[in-house]
Amino acid sequence: MRKMACKVAYEGTYFAGYQVQPGKRTIQGEIEASLKKIHKGEELRIHSSGRTDSLVHATGQVFHFETSLAIPVSRWAKALNALLPADIRIIEAVEVSKDFHARYSAISKQYRYRILLTKEGDLFRRNHCYHFTEMLDIEAIKEAAQHILGKHDFSAFCAANTSVIDKIRTVTRLELQHVGDELLFIVEGDGFLYNMVRIMVGTLLEVGTGKRDPHELQAIIEGCDRTKAGKTAPGHGLYLHQVNYPEPIFS
Amino acid sequence: MRKMACKVAYEGTYFAGYQVQPGKRTIQGEIEASLKKIHKGEELRIHSSGRTDSLVHATGQVFHFETSLAIPVSRWAKALNALLPADIRIIEAVEVSKDFHARYSAISKQYRYRILLTKEGDLFRRNHCYHFTEMLDIEAIKEAAQHILGKHDFSAFCAANTSVIDKIRTVTRLELQHVGDELLFIVEGDGFLYNMVRIMVGTLLEVGTGKRDPHELQAIIEGCDRTKAGKTAPGHGLYLHQVNYPEPIFS
Repeated sequence: MRKMACKVAYEGTYFAGYQVQPGKRTIQGEIEASLKKIHKGEELRIHSSGRTDSLVHATGQVFHFETSLAIPVSRWAKALNALLPADIRIIEAVEVSKDFHARYSAISKQYRYRILLTKEGDLFRRNHCYHFTEMLDIEAIKEAAQHILGKHDFSAFCAANTSVIDKIRTVTRLELQHVGDELLFIVEGDGFLYNMVRIMVGTLLEVGTGKRDPHELQAIIEGCDRTKAGKTAPGHGLYLHQVNYPEPIFS
Repeated sequence: MRKMACKVAYEGTYFAGYQVQPGKRTIQGEIEASLKKIHKGEELRIHSSGRTDSLVHATGQVFHFETSLAIPVSRWAKALNALLPADIRIIEAVEVSKDFHARYSAISKQYRYRILLTKEGDLFRRNHCYHFTEMLDIEAIKEAAQHILGKHDFSAFCAANTSVIDKIRTVTRLELQHVGDELLFIVEGDGFLYNMVRIMVGTLLEVGTGKRDPHELQAIIEGCDRTKAGKTAPGHGLYLHQVNYPEPIFS
């Protein structure tokens, strides 16, 4: 048996999220269905770096699977893309060592969040950006973001319906960039709780509109109380951009 | 009765084209269904500047209709957008004089054609740009484009299945722009035949790849023979960008 790892991009819009659900169109479900065809009916399970919610996109999700097929490494991406729907694309497929695990081997992840700042919105990006029309104080957001950086108990930024017990995570990067008419949040850390990036972005936007003071962020984090943080920003602005491993496995 | 004109944008991807067809989702059909709701069941017909094919987008299509409703001009766009699906957006609604006609009053139109030049393509623009991976000689395309400019019988650039007899049109602008990783064709003229822009773009791309000589364009136009021109570029790269009237009716 060989172990293969794939870097995959998907547009989350027309999926009921990542994880397999009976009767629903999911990313995992589509990939496993394509692998089943390649394996002549044999059921395969893929293991990803983590789930993404419905509407959430990926430009660099990673999954692995085991196969007994002798398809050359260079042909896997093309073979899968020929069977996958157009809203899932394998960017690269590589062979990995037996002890690699897309989730457990990951040391950090980068998420991105796109906010469209134009007054009128853009029909062609309606599913790709969160359209936000209120004026934003970018300096205030940057000041607030400083409190998020570092190692904290992020209970305040975790959706209530989670079974995770250890909520201590380290955010190593939280950056804002203007890209054309969009505001881009880049968030990197060793791990993320359920809805953590979206609650962070939602809270920082409330700082940006003056609804909250930048200094409040410290108390919000220390309070470990979800109800003290801001709203969860919508899923369709979020992208799982990169999953990092101790040694880079993709080109 | 008042006459209203609307500037409308739509993503053509999930429509069977512009024109009403029984049992199919079309742009005209969706707009007329929304107007019917506003008019409490009364059937209305809209008149556009022209049809667009399936997959073709619009950022500035124009249509008009007559109404007996007293809704203030400033509320029409919002009222319609509340009923229309998310892939059709009214940009502006204005009241026009009785003799205005979206099609017959138009003096010129601008189309745009987006070509994505990156090697790998972009999942999020797969329905919005024609992904073209061959190397292009832009100077050769510009040279060929000079032959298209001006007043010609454009029979060579007209799909065979058309009932139009007079095929003389004037192309007043044919420009290439690099916009990020895309190549943008901007084409303006007093009128366009069926598939004219797509056949032009398809032919110019064949010049760009060296399959044709820039000078061939003159013979192609003079020959008035569709089979001598190049392939029809795919619909999903094309945008109806603007319709012009003797006096500007939109802001």
